[in-house]
Amino acid sequence: MATLALASWATNLTYTNLTPGVIDSAVKSVYNWAGCAIGGYTQDAPHIAQNTTQLSFSGPPTSSILGSNGSISSSFVDAQTAALVNGIAGHVDDYDDTHLATIIHPAGTVASALLAVAEWKSDPDAGVPITGQDFLTAFVAGVEAELKLGLSVWPEHYDVGWHDTSTTGSIGAAVAVGKLLGLDTTRMQHAIGVAATQVIGMQEFFGSMTKSFHVGRAAQSGMLAALLAENGFTSSLQGLEAQFGWLHVVSTRENASAYFEQLGSIWEIQQNTFKPFPCGIVMHPTIDACIQLHNETLDGGKSVSSIQAVNLLVNPEVLVLTGKTDPQTGLESKFSIYHAAAIGLLFGEGTPTEFTDDVVKNQTVVDLRNKVKVMTDDSIAEDQANVTITFDDGSTMEKHIEHAIGSLDNPLTDDELKKKFMDQVTRAIGGQRAEKANDAFTNIGNLSDVGKIRMLF
Amino acid sequence: MATLALASWATNLTYTNLTPGVIDSAVKSVYNWAGCAIGGYTQDAPHIAQNTTQLSFSGPPTSSILGSNGSISSSFVDAQTAALVNGIAGHVDDYDDTHLATIIHPAGTVASALLAVAEWKSDPDAGVPITGQDFLTAFVAGVEAELKLGLSVWPEHYDVGWHDTSTTGSIGAAVAVGKLLGLDTTRMQHAIGVAATQVIGMQEFFGSMTKSFHVGRAAQSGMLAALLAENGFTSSLQGLEAQFGWLHVVSTRENASAYFEQLGSIWEIQQNTFKPFPCGIVMHPTIDACIQLHNETLDGGKSVSSIQAVNLLVNPEVLVLTGKTDPQTGLESKFSIYHAAAIGLLFGEGTPTEFTDDVVKNQTVVDLRNKVKVMTDDSIAEDQANVTITFDDGSTMEKHIEHAIGSLDNPLTDDELKKKFMDQVTRAIGGQRAEKANDAFTNIGNLSDVGKIRMLF
Repeated sequence: MATLALASWATNLTYTNLTPGVIDSAVKSVYNWAGCAIGGYTQDAPHIAQNTTQLSFSGPPTSSILGSNGSISSSFVDAQTAALVNGIAGHVDDYDDTHLATIIHPAGTVASALLAVAEWKSDPDAGVPITGQDFLTAFVAGVEAELKLGLSVWPEHYDVGWHDTSTTGSIGAAVAVGKLLGLDTTRMQHAIGVAATQVIGMQEFFGSMTKSFHVGRAAQSGMLAALLAENGFTSSLQGLEAQFGWLHVVSTRENASAYFEQLGSIWEIQQNTFKPFPCGIVMHPTIDACIQLHNETLDGGKSVSSIQAVNLLVNPEVLVLTGKTDPQTGLESKFSIYHAAAIGLLFGEGTPTEFTDDVVKNQTVVDLRNKVKVMTDDSIAEDQANVTITFDDGSTMEKHIEHAIGSLDNPLTDDELKKKFMDQVTRAIGGQRAEKANDAFTNIGNLSDVGKIRMLF
Repeated sequence: MATLALASWATNLTYTNLTPGVIDSAVKSVYNWAGCAIGGYTQDAPHIAQNTTQLSFSGPPTSSILGSNGSISSSFVDAQTAALVNGIAGHVDDYDDTHLATIIHPAGTVASALLAVAEWKSDPDAGVPITGQDFLTAFVAGVEAELKLGLSVWPEHYDVGWHDTSTTGSIGAAVAVGKLLGLDTTRMQHAIGVAATQVIGMQEFFGSMTKSFHVGRAAQSGMLAALLAENGFTSSLQGLEAQFGWLHVVSTRENASAYFEQLGSIWEIQQNTFKPFPCGIVMHPTIDACIQLHNETLDGGKSVSSIQAVNLLVNPEVLVLTGKTDPQTGLESKFSIYHAAAIGLLFGEGTPTEFTDDVVKNQTVVDLRNKVKVMTDDSIAEDQANVTITFDDGSTMEKHIEHAIGSLDNPLTDDELKKKFMDQVTRAIGGQRAEKANDAFTNIGNLSDVGKIRMLF
């Protein structure tokens, strides 16, 4: 009964069911995603996707490409195209959000689909405005769907190679869009089925443009599922739990019933965290340590150019996911623990600038990358790291990170989250518009018409 | 090296590599698919898909919805929408084609994507016509890709619940479209990767509209993959064989290298068969037997209304796939061996007409369906069946089918294939246009511009 349980919970959810903590997490998740979608639009991947689809495959322009800095007319496409491009842009920097128990980045798929549909469907003149409260309610429904599903098949589903952000993301997007469209429970079940049969994303594509495509495509797939179901398209009422349905086909184990019983009482969205660095989350403790060592090196009157050896002690999963020793592109460097250590030590920063093609090929970076040695130890948690650097005079410095910045035990402060937003948005669309975008997205819960949010910045 | 092997073979394939037998199979596969796509368009599923997408999500109209009987202008949509609608229409009747070793219906995904792109891209005025020979070469490349992949993961991939027609279909469509676009080997590898990470289709959705959606969506997914790769989108050069790539993520076993070595020497397309009945292929021997028993009943001066009991002896897989005892819709009846026996005995026919909602609810059909008993036996092959009917006077008739009509050992004749085409196409667009469509698609290999094929009928 998993499909019915999820559909029934989502269709019955109201804004008044959301606690203040849930609303706060939802607003921050949308805000952080919007910053990433605007900032990430400067990358090649969303542009190739846009160039491939806008002229040939977009219908009437109703929905915005968030990071577009051109004319208003060139910034709008149909909702399917917007979901694809914003979905890619929001994930391409690996800078978005993380539900640490599943390593799912939950906001991107749901928000990309939902905002595009809200812009398309909201029509206050016709008496159907989509308010900020409606938007956040649908967003929470979609995110909870993703994360409960992710937990239900963790870790078997992930360990075999699926990218669970997008494999659960198409279903989350369908639930969110279905909620916004007001589907009844039966049509919501059909929407979940159509979404579930589109399984997007494998880990082999990490470090390439296709990783971010996963998010954009899952957003499109979930949106299409909800729209088809709204129009009477049939799938199955047991698309998740049936023998040949999603849970059993994509995983050797599942316990969805137990997790779905917690819907509305344990809110996964409150476990969402926001990345301080634009790269694989398991590299974050190392970057945190290396940035602190950079500062202490300078404070101690030494130069980072005199570092002769870098020794990392990290969780074994770090090498599984981010073991690229010799990255060739910015995207590949987001999965190189060697690059992460080098840029933290050299620049004392871990922003999108340190993960560009240029920096990856910079000879000073390459030289320091080659001095990094990695040891793994099961007793080191994924948000921990121990870094030792040795200088050419034989002296050493060591830094132990107990909980990396951005982790649940050491989350970004509101100020740090704003700095992250403003940095990347300013780089993309300038400081004036960045301030307005900051105001628009922090205030999204109070908007009477989310469909006009792009006009606010 | 599976991805490189496939990409390299496909990019180097030329029309002169195709044997006469391969060309004959390719033309028949496209012809049979076109008949199904035109005939199947009368169903609800493709119309809901069209209504959901055409106005809101279609770009400039370049590609035809094959079964459309309206004005030329309303019959054209963008290539992505055409691929979706034709893909659904061509599969919704479960009347298409079957590669028996994998139960893959190979033509639909590849042809739906390829024809839409050919219509969009062919421009003889600009010196880039897509000829019938180019079209067939790309079609064969895509079909071989699907079928070799299907064999590589058979039966583990199918047994866990995947719908291998569409899970391999997105990759086949990408190879075919990539071939038509002239991608180099590296870009073809990237296209294969983007397609491979979109895994569409689970068996839970058999008997609903979503089964046919699998084919349309896989066609779209493969097309998009090829177009993105053409524009420089990156995925992986080892998207199939990598530890976290397609072969290992979707199957517990694979032997792609062995099958890909046979590319160009053993042609799977020559094993393609064409369905005589619009339903799950494992029901075909039973329908074959029941139609013969219907005729022999009448020839013997008896009435089918005097049948009191129907006993089937079939392969066990028949009940796994088609065990619905009480179907409620035409689509569900395509997966009911009970319905199959009843309509064969009552009407002596197994055409789309006998699998409609009306016939499914007909009381005479329901009554006979309830008299059908099914026994299974491992020693009965999937293309065999034994049917015994008992009349109210206690007399019996028995029919054993050694190889069902439409199977490799008992294929449809050219006349039977034409009758199938003409019956369904005439019902959809009338006899005059049906004759022209028959001429166009039987002659497709000789066309100088496949992009104008819709103008021929």
